Amino acid sequence: MSRRIAALAVLLAATAAPALAQPKAAISKADRDLHENLTVLDTHFDTPALFNVEGWRIIDRHDVAKDGSQVDYPRMVEGGVDGGVFVVFTAQGPRTPEGNAAARDFALVRITEIREMAARYSDKFQVVTTAAEARKLANTPKKFVFISLENSYPLGRDLTLMETFYDLGARMMSPVHTANNDLADSATAPAEHGGLSPLGKQWVAEANRLGVLIDASHASDAATEQMIELSKAPIILSHTGAKAIFDHPRNIGDDLMRKLAAKGGVIQLNALSNYMITVPPNAERDAALRELNRKYGRPKTRAAMEAATAERAAILARYGTPRATFDDFVKHLLHAIEVAGIDHVGISGDFDGGGGLTGFEDILDFPDITAALRAKGYSKADIDKVWGGNALRVFEQAQAQAGR
Amino acid sequence: MSRRIAALAVLLAATAAPALAQPKAAISKADRDLHENLTVLDTHFDTPALFNVEGWRIIDRHDVAKDGSQVDYPRMVEGGVDGGVFVVFTAQGPRTPEGNAAARDFALVRITEIREMAARYSDKFQVVTTAAEARKLANTPKKFVFISLENSYPLGRDLTLMETFYDLGARMMSPVHTANNDLADSATAPAEHGGLSPLGKQWVAEANRLGVLIDASHASDAATEQMIELSKAPIILSHTGAKAIFDHPRNIGDDLMRKLAAKGGVIQLNALSNYMITVPPNAERDAALRELNRKYGRPKTRAAMEAATAERAAILARYGTPRATFDDFVKHLLHAIEVAGIDHVGISGDFDGGGGLTGFEDILDFPDITAALRAKGYSKADIDKVWGGNALRVFEQAQAQAGR
Repeated sequence: MSRRIAALAVLLAATAAPALAQPKAAISKADRDLHENLTVLDTHFDTPALFNVEGWRIIDRHDVAKDGSQVDYPRMVEGGVDGGVFVVFTAQGPRTPEGNAAARDFALVRITEIREMAARYSDKFQVVTTAAEARKLANTPKKFVFISLENSYPLGRDLTLMETFYDLGARMMSPVHTANNDLADSATAPAEHGGLSPLGKQWVAEANRLGVLIDASHASDAATEQMIELSKAPIILSHTGAKAIFDHPRNIGDDLMRKLAAKGGVIQLNALSNYMITVPPNAERDAALRELNRKYGRPKTRAAMEAATAERAAILARYGTPRATFDDFVKHLLHAIEVAGIDHVGISGDFDGGGGLTGFEDILDFPDITAALRAKGYSKADIDKVWGGNALRVFEQAQAQAGR
Repeated sequence: MSRRIAALAVLLAATAAPALAQPKAAISKADRDLHENLTVLDTHFDTPALFNVEGWRIIDRHDVAKDGSQVDYPRMVEGGVDGGVFVVFTAQGPRTPEGNAAARDFALVRITEIREMAARYSDKFQVVTTAAEARKLANTPKKFVFISLENSYPLGRDLTLMETFYDLGARMMSPVHTANNDLADSATAPAEHGGLSPLGKQWVAEANRLGVLIDASHASDAATEQMIELSKAPIILSHTGAKAIFDHPRNIGDDLMRKLAAKGGVIQLNALSNYMITVPPNAERDAALRELNRKYGRPKTRAAMEAATAERAAILARYGTPRATFDDFVKHLLHAIEVAGIDHVGISGDFDGGGGLTGFEDILDFPDITAALRAKGYSKADIDKVWGGNALRVFEQAQAQAGR
């Protein structure tokens, strides 16, 4: 998939079409109570991309149908969410010294914005660097903020910058995004390195030395397999689907899922519609979405976010664009539990980064997953693993072998 | 001066000996009123070094005699201080790839700590990047925070990092500290480059391109002269004394001061005792101070700061260590005004970085400078220039020619 098309995929999937959403049955009090007592986290919040939007504040309650945003403090409280991994996402750009320097600077500013957010609202958020710190905050009013680097393009060819980002609080890193870079092949680009490059293999060793949890989401199957094999600690797929349910390069097959689990790793099931259903091509619609993207880019104000959200919803509705649903998500989740085992599965909505399905619009819908798992007979202990226990375990395992 | 001795000089000068301080006459109401109406800033606060000290918070009022600290929010209010340049100081270390990377990481963490401080106490502090923003905050409850890089060692040989620090808010940078580095010769080390290295000259050009104010404090005379000549914008000496008043390598001579002024630059007079008087050597005292330094290093808790402060004061008192006074400072200041002109002089206590004199213990003593200048017949307009107008002008001039 070209970068342009990958960007379009995000565009297509980025927004709820509120008119199409079906009201869901409220979950039972027992399910709700159970949900409230779990440690609930999402391993891929793209919300930091909104931190510099004028008029958008994480402490205000927003409406996904109105501004497209999917994570904020009030909704974390309402959705029973204890924290998450907030990502420093850097879009892949030119693999040149200038491009690398620009990406480095972008990512350093973004990680600083995450830290500033937590400092500004220190009664509501706290940057954490260990599973123990996160567990301590679970079920308190303060939400924990793990920091992750999505795409290691900001490192350029200088792996010493991994320690820089580590020093600034990053405890999870992924090598690559939707296009290949100097470290690894992307799941959505033609193979270039055959997986990891030699530098990418050093990247794995350095992540292990630092105790950084390796995230293979967006990496090619070959790169993912190599990370599983080379890493001294279990790895994570922070937001990835099951290929057996829908065949898309961003989803992984059962064999690889089993390999991941055999080494102790975790797959966090993703909720990005275009990786979950077939969207028939429509040249007119795609042109309209491209024009929308050209018009707004990354909106810089809340008003622009709201205008873009409304226009996007109108375009998607006009062309009757199909959208995956909560039930599709549950299928991926149950399949992964069956294949990888209950100790190796978790959840990510890919919110504020393209995620969101009909009936799974934002973090307010998280309790429905608890209800769905309970309906399938899973125990509290099982559901707790899926909601956070497994992810916290791999953070812990990555750190336990640091420096060895 | 060797690095060890330079560190010792800081040790010697770092602390008030409260028992020796003479109570000063209170300043008049007219002087106080005048002071309150000026834009008062200091161009070199080393206070960020305290931001990660456990139990020390900039919003609490501290006593210099008790913990040695010299700048905090309540004292800014009491001392009529509107803001200042908060520095990212990095001690010079090995000029190796490893040393450079460690310095880079240290400085990136420190600049983040400054931004986190301002975010945490956003009702009391604001990071500013222009003189206009600073002027807008003057005489409001919110204090402005310029960020500066003291020592460009964190750049190593990679000048693209200047833009990184610029993106994170730094608007002033100095090339070198008490030892030579790859950019420039230090005032307190034997000449190595004969001023600026070729890379140091590129550093000047890049500072100009970005609109970063060049700070020549700590640079050798040759390096300072080259910066004055090469820079397209006026430069600053953020904390430096007058050699005609006391002959020390950290002070500059009248000719250089005139050259600085002729190009529009500013010298901010410094208040570090060992650069202002002769301290007779005393092997026993110096051994005691070294032992103190070995024992505490950079204190990590407020309790350790207090213990170190008491022990240091006891050592200095035991050996009757002489200490420069407020009157010495005024001599430097008046001399610089005479030589450079009223448009080219400003003030820095070098507080929390070794500054502090008898009768000029911390920022609470700033109004005394206003009174002293008024007693000498300077007008409100003159005194306003010295307290902030001149420094803000050179920030503005540096930015005005950015990119040209």
